Amino acid sequence: MNNSGIERVRSTEIAAHIGKRVELQGWLHAVRRLGGVAFVIVRDGWGMAQAVAEEAGQLASIVDGEVQPESVIRLSGIVTEAPQAPGGVELHQPEVEIVTPVTEPLPVLIGKKEIKAALNTQLDHAVFVNRHPTRRAVFRLGAGVMSAFRAHLDGCGFTEIQTPKLVASATESGANVFAVDYFGQKAFLAQSPQFYKQAMVGVFERVYEVGPVFRAEPHDTTRHINEYVSLDVELGFIENHFTVMDVLRNVLAHIFASLNGRYTAELALTGAQLPTVPASIPHIHFADAQELILKLHGVDVRGEPDLSPQDERWLGEWAQQEHGSDFLFVTGYPMAKRPFYTHPDLTRPGYSNSFDLLFRGTELVTGGQRLHRYADYQAALAERGLSEELFASYLETFRYGMPPHGGFAIGLERLLMQLIGAPNLRLTTLFPRDLNRLTP
Amino acid sequence: MNNSGIERVRSTEIAAHIGKRVELQGWLHAVRRLGGVAFVIVRDGWGMAQAVAEEAGQLASIVDGEVQPESVIRLSGIVTEAPQAPGGVELHQPEVEIVTPVTEPLPVLIGKKEIKAALNTQLDHAVFVNRHPTRRAVFRLGAGVMSAFRAHLDGCGFTEIQTPKLVASATESGANVFAVDYFGQKAFLAQSPQFYKQAMVGVFERVYEVGPVFRAEPHDTTRHINEYVSLDVELGFIENHFTVMDVLRNVLAHIFASLNGRYTAELALTGAQLPTVPASIPHIHFADAQELILKLHGVDVRGEPDLSPQDERWLGEWAQQEHGSDFLFVTGYPMAKRPFYTHPDLTRPGYSNSFDLLFRGTELVTGGQRLHRYADYQAALAERGLSEELFASYLETFRYGMPPHGGFAIGLERLLMQLIGAPNLRLTTLFPRDLNRLTP
Repeated sequence: MNNSGIERVRSTEIAAHIGKRVELQGWLHAVRRLGGVAFVIVRDGWGMAQAVAEEAGQLASIVDGEVQPESVIRLSGIVTEAPQAPGGVELHQPEVEIVTPVTEPLPVLIGKKEIKAALNTQLDHAVFVNRHPTRRAVFRLGAGVMSAFRAHLDGCGFTEIQTPKLVASATESGANVFAVDYFGQKAFLAQSPQFYKQAMVGVFERVYEVGPVFRAEPHDTTRHINEYVSLDVELGFIENHFTVMDVLRNVLAHIFASLNGRYTAELALTGAQLPTVPASIPHIHFADAQELILKLHGVDVRGEPDLSPQDERWLGEWAQQEHGSDFLFVTGYPMAKRPFYTHPDLTRPGYSNSFDLLFRGTELVTGGQRLHRYADYQAALAERGLSEELFASYLETFRYGMPPHGGFAIGLERLLMQLIGAPNLRLTTLFPRDLNRLTP
Repeated sequence: MNNSGIERVRSTEIAAHIGKRVELQGWLHAVRRLGGVAFVIVRDGWGMAQAVAEEAGQLASIVDGEVQPESVIRLSGIVTEAPQAPGGVELHQPEVEIVTPVTEPLPVLIGKKEIKAALNTQLDHAVFVNRHPTRRAVFRLGAGVMSAFRAHLDGCGFTEIQTPKLVASATESGANVFAVDYFGQKAFLAQSPQFYKQAMVGVFERVYEVGPVFRAEPHDTTRHINEYVSLDVELGFIENHFTVMDVLRNVLAHIFASLNGRYTAELALTGAQLPTVPASIPHIHFADAQELILKLHGVDVRGEPDLSPQDERWLGEWAQQEHGSDFLFVTGYPMAKRPFYTHPDLTRPGYSNSFDLLFRGTELVTGGQRLHRYADYQAALAERGLSEELFASYLETFRYGMPPHGGFAIGLERLLMQLIGAPNLRLTTLFPRDLNRLTP
């Protein structure tokens, strides 16, 4: 109840109050005039609702344009069925109180279905433009993905961890890390929680983390940002990478089922196309994938150590045609292109127990089985000319008993990008960081 | 099922399988000999269970000490009721398979109830020592706190956000921030998500974030770490800071109720004393608190701009004696000691609409109402001699319509420290970062 004794309700809940006067609290989203009638759209934290000013004088300050869009208002009215209105209801006999007026022109107009501004303008004004219904639907889907990810793993005996982002040495290669001045010492921002999540398999067997990762990659493309949210999983007592792939399949199935059930409005606003996750996601070995590309497209990529974006698109098309699947596991990537902790395929020299998951022809997840024996780590580091000393803390995990284990990492923004078909990864995160952008 | 067709169960679930042979997969935690019988304790990701070797030859390699503690094992046995055993069951007729043997001495012994090693030794070997049942119980409680925090807020219409940790300017003061080399530009690590969570009130009205924050405070005390997990909340359309305090009260009540119901073993292991959260937490104004201290303890702290740790202890004692409460809100801190975005108490010049929550005589949470009008921000910055330009992106939020709003931040580690009575904050986080520690 507010001070005047009228119940405050969310815009998404007014249909439950037909015939009663309720109050909305939110932002003046837009005003549309139609004949002698004016529709005043209020946006609150959850959705939008419309009030109708049917007589001269009602909501005069708003209808006359004296109150600018984005002004904060409290608006009350009698909830009335109106089949033509969004949500089937609207507010009649409206009264308004202006809480915080906006007195200067808006940097970008956000009261229409589309935002008509260049990408850079939108990003420059993200603190404001993120209010647009379609923009915020993307972020709400992101929240839904994180929530479903955690809920599923909690139910499978996983423990959530939070590992340090300030680290003494680079996780994988030493390249592409941001350096930090740490009380006069040189520190780095973690590229991934890889080392820590492996150590925590020794503690909880099954762990996950949702947190920021930092990549100092100097790439200015539509598919790169330099800080993103990583959904990390690691688990022990696996048979091999196929155990990990099963866990990933179930995580994704739960995420999409959860979005489907609970985020109908956001899926509609963003035009997201939810995939169906097959009971068993088809998989193909890296070498067989290269043979397939030769056979289907006449391009010989055999011997290449990795798949190109074009290769991935072709494989995605094949998965769709052959298996009716939006998803395809490519397994067994060459050891040469995988990090030193990757477990080799003992039956097929040169190949690894690793995988990528392609979603609609683009890599969405990378994962695999890791080495778990200390001696194997020593050999792997020596082979790559890396010093054991640099990895002393990490290696300690393996000196004192580790089971076969593996895991994967899903990039939250990448998942959202492919789900909603965004043209640029920057549109899937609140305040993107890239080569040229540190603000807002 | 494993390869041999015996069901793999977690140590915490074996009581549901009495009379059946089950397999545990985990670590050899300890061996205890009692007369002619040996008890072999297996620790897995969830708890511990014991197997009994009653005859010579059973589990010989383990009983004879050939297999060292922390070796990874699969151990099967017939689940048998045993009232004297932990959990009331134990495994008989055991058989073992060694998965990964440990072949070198352990850096710290973790098979006993207490860890007998200096704090620094424990922290140096955290990747290993975190396996100790009591250590990991602390981290499991931490996961429980995060989970309950989110669940409660999700149920109250809050949206989870993830905001950037790489920022262009310091959040509050410019002091105590870590500098990052960002492609040749100078960036900083966020001290808090304060500015972003306020901006996101303009988008979702109610938001929360769980994530790392970074404080370059050069303090070497038992109560400081330089990277910690902050549980942040911000909400709009509040009356004043008392609205925020109500939300905080309910968040804490839900967290402790959830721990009480779901983390019995961890609470027992850590010796945590769960508080009762009163239906209404008592509150006292800052100025009245100073008067009270004069009256009760004869110490005149009136005029001091902040409370000392001793003041907080006295107030904690008073809350306990007068109200039977582990919690006490102190409200109205002087504006001089609060950040520039703090909303003043318009009825009491010099004081603010802010609060601290004391838990057992120590500050646990800081929060309050923020300014929401652009002109007020301009005035506040001018008064402190801060340039508007430095805060241009932040200010944009307030130029385009913001409601009265406020929020708070709970330090996860601080909460755990006070809950379990830890002597050092470093013992409440997986891999602490301090003035001298960047590894593991």
